[in-house]
Amino acid sequence: MKTQKNLFGPELPLILMGLESFTEPLKQRGTRHVQMDFRPSLSISAKARAALAKHEARINEANQEAISRILTARPMLVGMGRALDVVPGMHPKLILHAGPPITWERMCGPMRGGVVGALLYEGLASTPEEAEKMAAAGEVEFSPCHEHSAVGPMAGIISASMPVFIVRNETHGNLAFATQNEGLGKVLRYGAFSPEVVTRLKWMEQTLYPTLKTAIEKAVSKSALDLKTLIAQALHMGDEVHNRNRAATSLLYRALAPWIVETAPSREVASEVLQFVNSNDHFFLNLSMAASKASLAPALGVPGSSVVVTMARNGTDFGVQLSGTGARWFTGAAPVPDALFFKGYTKADANPDLGDSAITETAGLGGFAIAASPAIVQFVGGSAADAVQYTLQMYEITLTENPVFQIPSLDFRGTPTGIDARRVVAKNILPFIDTGVAHKLPGIGQVGAGVLSAPSEPFVRAIEGLAEALA
Amino acid sequence: MKTQKNLFGPELPLILMGLESFTEPLKQRGTRHVQMDFRPSLSISAKARAALAKHEARINEANQEAISRILTARPMLVGMGRALDVVPGMHPKLILHAGPPITWERMCGPMRGGVVGALLYEGLASTPEEAEKMAAAGEVEFSPCHEHSAVGPMAGIISASMPVFIVRNETHGNLAFATQNEGLGKVLRYGAFSPEVVTRLKWMEQTLYPTLKTAIEKAVSKSALDLKTLIAQALHMGDEVHNRNRAATSLLYRALAPWIVETAPSREVASEVLQFVNSNDHFFLNLSMAASKASLAPALGVPGSSVVVTMARNGTDFGVQLSGTGARWFTGAAPVPDALFFKGYTKADANPDLGDSAITETAGLGGFAIAASPAIVQFVGGSAADAVQYTLQMYEITLTENPVFQIPSLDFRGTPTGIDARRVVAKNILPFIDTGVAHKLPGIGQVGAGVLSAPSEPFVRAIEGLAEALA
Repeated sequence: MKTQKNLFGPELPLILMGLESFTEPLKQRGTRHVQMDFRPSLSISAKARAALAKHEARINEANQEAISRILTARPMLVGMGRALDVVPGMHPKLILHAGPPITWERMCGPMRGGVVGALLYEGLASTPEEAEKMAAAGEVEFSPCHEHSAVGPMAGIISASMPVFIVRNETHGNLAFATQNEGLGKVLRYGAFSPEVVTRLKWMEQTLYPTLKTAIEKAVSKSALDLKTLIAQALHMGDEVHNRNRAATSLLYRALAPWIVETAPSREVASEVLQFVNSNDHFFLNLSMAASKASLAPALGVPGSSVVVTMARNGTDFGVQLSGTGARWFTGAAPVPDALFFKGYTKADANPDLGDSAITETAGLGGFAIAASPAIVQFVGGSAADAVQYTLQMYEITLTENPVFQIPSLDFRGTPTGIDARRVVAKNILPFIDTGVAHKLPGIGQVGAGVLSAPSEPFVRAIEGLAEALA
Repeated sequence: MKTQKNLFGPELPLILMGLESFTEPLKQRGTRHVQMDFRPSLSISAKARAALAKHEARINEANQEAISRILTARPMLVGMGRALDVVPGMHPKLILHAGPPITWERMCGPMRGGVVGALLYEGLASTPEEAEKMAAAGEVEFSPCHEHSAVGPMAGIISASMPVFIVRNETHGNLAFATQNEGLGKVLRYGAFSPEVVTRLKWMEQTLYPTLKTAIEKAVSKSALDLKTLIAQALHMGDEVHNRNRAATSLLYRALAPWIVETAPSREVASEVLQFVNSNDHFFLNLSMAASKASLAPALGVPGSSVVVTMARNGTDFGVQLSGTGARWFTGAAPVPDALFFKGYTKADANPDLGDSAITETAGLGGFAIAASPAIVQFVGGSAADAVQYTLQMYEITLTENPVFQIPSLDFRGTPTGIDARRVVAKNILPFIDTGVAHKLPGIGQVGAGVLSAPSEPFVRAIEGLAEALA
């Protein structure tokens, strides 16, 4: 009834499952350990089970290839551009969104709000009502960010005029794209679309973007903006680069500020841009996501691999993509997160989990690296010890550790990386994810921030899908 | 005697001293604890012991007052000025130095090097030989920084023309001063005095200083530059603000950059200043020290108090001041630190411990907060668990915890604050200090960075001095 594997060598913790009394002798020897509830495996079909057993060696080999592609990634910030000009497949009537594919009819409130805001911002509609009608009438096309090498936090809306960061994985040559972070509160990504939201987006397009673009080009002409190194440093500074990006934002700001000063159209603009970035500790989030996407994308399409390369939520469905099953999405209902709610809001106001930001967890960051960032667990009532436990659990469902991304409090152990969907199913340990929480109605915005475990359904379906593909 | 670690359990640790078998029952209950070697108390005279016992209640009461003054401190960066204009008692032929008082004859190599550099920088001497002659002939006066409300890292040299930061403790109204940090390598504070060192100091006086001064004034006109809050944030970001100041430097940089941009004489200067600060992750150190000095100074002079308000080293002597014995210094030989030495250097090259930077430990930061910054212990071969142990030991010799300065990995427990010299002596646990290491010869510079325990002699003498004062 229990699994006692010492995966981590003599000093690192054992993971103990089963009745607590079984573990007493170990505790009395003072061995560092993790106590977990006993959980039976998730249920998959006998046929799938047989296929996985039959092809075990092949899956393991494919996983080594997928893992190798992930670990060797070198994501660099190389520039910026307008989505229409740089994002593959973008066109003036295309709206990209977070998570797996979804129709307007099934879209959650905050994603609908984001779509309305984008249509107003693009000038395609002049009132929210007109925007809703257009969307319902099929006058705009919807597609997941992930299917265009892009990622977006929360609603994840990207429309043609929006500026995006361009991240290039120098090892594999692929690109990833993400918008500029708007800040907190009433913002498009949380479903708000009031005039202040649209005005801010216009300022970001007309002032922030050209200033950052020129500064980035100048900075890059001097030395590479290496996001992997920056994230590695931020993990040593209390960030997990999903719900906490204060250090990463600071380091990016330090790297760019001298070039913003030298190249901005005026000192006033330079100061305005610096103050905008300085006022938003989440500014780096979109780059953390683009770096994660750029790092994981080359691992998509290794036949037979059970490595998870995408976890993404559209606020209705939670979607997973496996390396071995390519572009196919496996979905289940998105759960509502446990959260610290802003004053006046409760879990009853919360939309189910939303956003492409779980790409950070997929890359071994965010909730997987939460031991580096106990402040996040603290604000939902947990302790530093809980944060360590969450990360230790994630080693159970991952295949490797990223030697570049280290957790100081675990003696600089690499973050758990390369989720094996087989292990998720066999151990019934679901990926731990940090998240923001949007109001379930369009037009309101953020109501909290919190944590959750991924739902099991997408992983069960993914494993069955992989088994089919192998058969 | 073994050290057993269960660092991440639900409760805060007990500290256990003595035979290991005494602690077995606690271990078997899984209680979190620290096992330390049994150490007999430091030896003090019977007379001193009797005086301390007789006046115990009075000492305790005085300590409460001293502690209250330390905890209520609110150090703010309020401006900058030239040392001659703002540092009390400064005059053109006065050289301030780190640590307790010392003569030219007894000065260590790097401090002599710093004096030579300062005389060249001030134009009082035109060659190093001339400078040495002047110093040996008594043509300049020496005095500890600490006796002028100032603090200086390593050699701690402050001469009349040097610009200083001005930190004001808003609760108590007192000021503290510190120079601008020069960066690493061949710098005055490590005893180097080559032309590049003097040229850099001139640039810092003529370009860096006026730019920062104006930016700080502008920033302060908008909102206070609260160093206590900034340090609190940095502790959540992997700094202990002595040997690691990357986060604090980043946060300061973010706060000042927009104002530097708006107020610098030109964009080129703004960019140059931003690049200088950006290139030096230790830039904040001098402010961390000034904030610590500003916070501790009001606690000097509570009759009867055994609280340590100064620990400072001149590279020859390690000096301590107690609250209850006022301006009197108690000294002992400065030890040579354990360190990570730069390539080509060994412990044989190292000067004994040097600098006023132990004011950070005295304020509950630096080595006392090292659990927040395991990277520092790692680079001298220790583990994250060792870092936690060092901080846990410091709770044994301190009277309180600073609720503002928290350590994430200890579930946001406050840093150990208010060293009680009685406890140091009774428990024979010496303050744990982070430090840089200077070459023992003048003119060379930094050769490493490391950690050490304070020597026992100054604490024994301080306790005997307090006992005399009470008698």
